[in-house]
Amino acid sequence: MSEHLYAVVPAGGAGTRLWPRSRRAAPKHVLSLSGTGRPLVGEAVERVRPLARQVFLLTEERQVAVLRHLLPDLGPEALIVEPVARGTTNALGLAAMTLLERDPEAVMVSTAADHVIRGLPAFHDAVRRAAALAERSRRLVTIGLQPRYPATGFGYIEVGEEVEFDGLQALAVRGFVEKPDAETARRYLEGGRHLWNLNLFCWRCDVFVEELRRHGPEHHDGLRAVLEARRAGDEGLAAERYARLPVEAVDYTVMERTDRLLVVPAGFEWTDVGSWSELAGLLERDEAGNVVEGAAIFLDARDCFVSAPGKLVAVIGMEGVVIVDTPDALLVCPRSRSQDVKRVVERLERLGKTEYL
Amino acid sequence: MSEHLYAVVPAGGAGTRLWPRSRRAAPKHVLSLSGTGRPLVGEAVERVRPLARQVFLLTEERQVAVLRHLLPDLGPEALIVEPVARGTTNALGLAAMTLLERDPEAVMVSTAADHVIRGLPAFHDAVRRAAALAERSRRLVTIGLQPRYPATGFGYIEVGEEVEFDGLQALAVRGFVEKPDAETARRYLEGGRHLWNLNLFCWRCDVFVEELRRHGPEHHDGLRAVLEARRAGDEGLAAERYARLPVEAVDYTVMERTDRLLVVPAGFEWTDVGSWSELAGLLERDEAGNVVEGAAIFLDARDCFVSAPGKLVAVIGMEGVVIVDTPDALLVCPRSRSQDVKRVVERLERLGKTEYL
Repeated sequence: MSEHLYAVVPAGGAGTRLWPRSRRAAPKHVLSLSGTGRPLVGEAVERVRPLARQVFLLTEERQVAVLRHLLPDLGPEALIVEPVARGTTNALGLAAMTLLERDPEAVMVSTAADHVIRGLPAFHDAVRRAAALAERSRRLVTIGLQPRYPATGFGYIEVGEEVEFDGLQALAVRGFVEKPDAETARRYLEGGRHLWNLNLFCWRCDVFVEELRRHGPEHHDGLRAVLEARRAGDEGLAAERYARLPVEAVDYTVMERTDRLLVVPAGFEWTDVGSWSELAGLLERDEAGNVVEGAAIFLDARDCFVSAPGKLVAVIGMEGVVIVDTPDALLVCPRSRSQDVKRVVERLERLGKTEYL
Repeated sequence: MSEHLYAVVPAGGAGTRLWPRSRRAAPKHVLSLSGTGRPLVGEAVERVRPLARQVFLLTEERQVAVLRHLLPDLGPEALIVEPVARGTTNALGLAAMTLLERDPEAVMVSTAADHVIRGLPAFHDAVRRAAALAERSRRLVTIGLQPRYPATGFGYIEVGEEVEFDGLQALAVRGFVEKPDAETARRYLEGGRHLWNLNLFCWRCDVFVEELRRHGPEHHDGLRAVLEARRAGDEGLAAERYARLPVEAVDYTVMERTDRLLVVPAGFEWTDVGSWSELAGLLERDEAGNVVEGAAIFLDARDCFVSAPGKLVAVIGMEGVVIVDTPDALLVCPRSRSQDVKRVVERLERLGKTEYL
């Protein structure tokens, strides 16, 4: 474990594709989804705790109370709080600058609060390699995952030549590719030159801040001003300044522009639990392929996913259907359509039915 | 309205095919299903009230409290109560004998508490014809419905020659047919010699009691003994005697054996609401054929039936699916499988999960 390695767990966003379980007041990372009975954010914290000197949650003001409630062991200084959510460039910039105030040598690894990762040794190994590389090479490092199937739902990193720093292996980054079509994804899988982009980053904080200054000076200078106000104890001014920062994803502001990026390939089992169907794939199924959270009676039903804690669900003659029940809302859809759940959320927004959001 | 016509509304049974809404504690007839917001039994009472001198509910002891609660206007003497349910022969025999004690000329019409009937004038006309015929002919009369489609879920009455009593037309009954196969049902529909058997009966009570004495003497004599005990004020003895009566359906004990049966054909709109799919057929649907009780959002969904009072239901990409939600149990099945809901109830019984029955 590096003396200067800090873990940052961004815990923001809502995860609308897991509606009706995920809500504004209960975003995906506060849900217990992986069958362990613990919230995903708690698992994320535990996952990196052995690696880092300290674990920080990176979140927005309105989520602080629920996170403290879920993770009572979290020290009071373990939260890095955005006054409001303003995109990943500002969030990660805020984290890097905040850590630099504590430790000028700080290295941070940023790993999402709402993903499920299995195969902990492989994950730990990858983070350790990335952290050592970030420290010695003074480069930004991203961890890319060996594709397991021709996924069309993720972005990809195209890798370049092998590079070495102080005996540490890595790959250059040729570029980023947005979600490809099925044919392209198949080519990526066969070609062996593309990795899944997990947005799993590791860098020396000073290096990241310098890259931010170079490629996103508005963010950089704005964040400096925010921290200045915070240091002066004026949280109101800090919030005001933060709210004026441009919103942009860090991929766009820094990752796609920097010439100082390396990638470390890894092979652990990962999912961003981007849909009910993906979640179903993670959990234990019965002989007929059905997955149940709660109690269910199946008659001629196969490959169904039922999540209805505290309720008895009877399913007759259905195949590959997702059924998610909550006290005020119920979802029924084919597994193949589970990406469209976000369209329900959009519809609810348009209809002004905020009580269900 | 005949001075001697009494309506009897048998309100027993559970209606397991409407689980999870129908339960032992909330049988089908106490549910509000037809879109009017009133329980079916209340509609049944109102339906016959204009025709009869008085309306009686025929039920079993354990349902008395809930019926009184649902129908507070019911007079205290308007219940004919079986100590326990012992089949339709005994129930109707008890009703006939009880009415005879009040009015030796009593004519009763018996019409189920849990059916939905539309086209009230045609219904009233049929009952009036049947009652007049029963009174003047001293025959048992059943009202048979002109088939509207080749139904395989109902029994049929095969009609014989036309007969006339005092200027009143009717048809002789050739026999009863159990639920036919599809081919046979099609022949019945085309042949015009078969009517749906609604178990909608009309008779002079003395005539029915005489037929009961002839074809089901055990029932007849047992019931006499029950009423004797009741007259003596010994309800305990009455209950004991009632519980020893053989259980048999009136179709078998009397209808199929008597030579004194006539049928009156009728053409009102009727359903026994024997499944969620049938219920869906009764209610108003939107352009896509979806029927909703509660609130729902449909994305690419057609011909679905959603019953989830107080809940928002989102349905994506489903066709012809039944979704019924209650506080402790949820059903999801294709409309074409809605007859199999009773198999869920049987499974629950086998599993001893009585809390869901």
